Amino acid sequence: MIKSVLLDLSGVIYDGNGAIPGALTAVSRLRDCGLRLRFVTNTTRMTKKNILLRLETLGLALTEDELFTPSQAACDWLRIRGCSAHLLVHPNLVEEFAERQGGGTKAVVVGDAGEAFDYAKLNEAFRKLVDGAPLLALAMNRTFKDDDNLLSLDAGGFVKALEYASGTTAIVLGKPSPDFFAGALASIPCDAGQSVMVGDDAEADVSGALLAGIGSALLVRTGKYRTGDETRFTPAPSATVADLSEAADWIIAHRN
Amino acid sequence: MIKSVLLDLSGVIYDGNGAIPGALTAVSRLRDCGLRLRFVTNTTRMTKKNILLRLETLGLALTEDELFTPSQAACDWLRIRGCSAHLLVHPNLVEEFAERQGGGTKAVVVGDAGEAFDYAKLNEAFRKLVDGAPLLALAMNRTFKDDDNLLSLDAGGFVKALEYASGTTAIVLGKPSPDFFAGALASIPCDAGQSVMVGDDAEADVSGALLAGIGSALLVRTGKYRTGDETRFTPAPSATVADLSEAADWIIAHRN
Repeated sequence: MIKSVLLDLSGVIYDGNGAIPGALTAVSRLRDCGLRLRFVTNTTRMTKKNILLRLETLGLALTEDELFTPSQAACDWLRIRGCSAHLLVHPNLVEEFAERQGGGTKAVVVGDAGEAFDYAKLNEAFRKLVDGAPLLALAMNRTFKDDDNLLSLDAGGFVKALEYASGTTAIVLGKPSPDFFAGALASIPCDAGQSVMVGDDAEADVSGALLAGIGSALLVRTGKYRTGDETRFTPAPSATVADLSEAADWIIAHRN
Repeated sequence: MIKSVLLDLSGVIYDGNGAIPGALTAVSRLRDCGLRLRFVTNTTRMTKKNILLRLETLGLALTEDELFTPSQAACDWLRIRGCSAHLLVHPNLVEEFAERQGGGTKAVVVGDAGEAFDYAKLNEAFRKLVDGAPLLALAMNRTFKDDDNLLSLDAGGFVKALEYASGTTAIVLGKPSPDFFAGALASIPCDAGQSVMVGDDAEADVSGALLAGIGSALLVRTGKYRTGDETRFTPAPSATVADLSEAADWIIAHRN
């Protein structure tokens, strides 16, 4: 019995060219079946507000409660512990951590900083880690599909670099963190076993969701999908489908 | 029976302030005992020629044959396979690869590029790896002691980042590669079991040498040594000593 669907955004709903053909109709079809939707993204180059605006421009209006981002999870983590953030993130994301500046233990927060990843900033973050700061990874994604349609380095590698040099193990906030999936499901609420995840990242979206106890996980062949991704990580996808449209067919067929 | 001594340079012979007190006298004492010396460095911010010049300025005259550098090992690797180099190295090091420019399969060569590690260059190297280029790591060192006397990010983390994102496993050319130690020993020649390594890096110098079959390995508490390093990696050092001077005492006492 499927009651809810967790959807990745980049590579599933949209890519560099706008909405992926059929994606918006698929979202409507899932909603019309009475399925509860949550959108779980590891994108860390835009604020939550700007992601919502972008989706609205594409024709997909979401409420704030339907969208889960790693910076939200990181701010929660920092707030609960009374920590502030030493940021190594994209300039666009800085404002999301405004409330976590100032006092308390500093934690190093790493997102997909893009061009802001330079030696001086990485070394500064490394030195905080050597001094005992915790390391929070907004995401561990290896790659993303860049505007030029080629794969580019995502945050994961830079987190690995800092882990290796400092001997610190990162706390991962976004997918595939079981807490991240659990947070999205708790907001419905819905049991993990009655949910399906749809994503283009065979590792963070698909294997990650299954390891977190999500009932099934579908890999789409849009976005950054590359031939063979379905066999690269364990557990393997419940099914590999052409796109979100075909994912919706699968979910609707399997929902009872 | 000890017949030869392999010596690390940075943190053993010199640091940011010049020769480490007692180091040059220790080298002379080892030579005077009839021990054969080889200098094995993972430094990749200077050409071999400039390392020799620096040592000469400090009062240590070496022949070219006594010094082993990772770029030399990398050039050999590339030459044997008819490959050329896509360089992600310190600007100072580029000239050492002059003969490996141009045709043939491109291999990505990563050294301690320092400020030259930026997102654009890392991403360019990553894309070569995605296209199938081999990944050569001049070294995998986690940290080095910088001019400000604090630890800084060394090449290892950046190699890890590229490995993680691309799914490629690096071929390591410098220490702790067994081939690197073997090359230095073959030039004497001396059996690995009859040699001692002295270094300030508990992992690349000490554990690495022991794993490569070197008879014993001494960790000095100079350079980047930090309290507890002797227990951080396996195998543990044969002995941990204050500096090269005390290492020379140990070697001379154990040589028969």
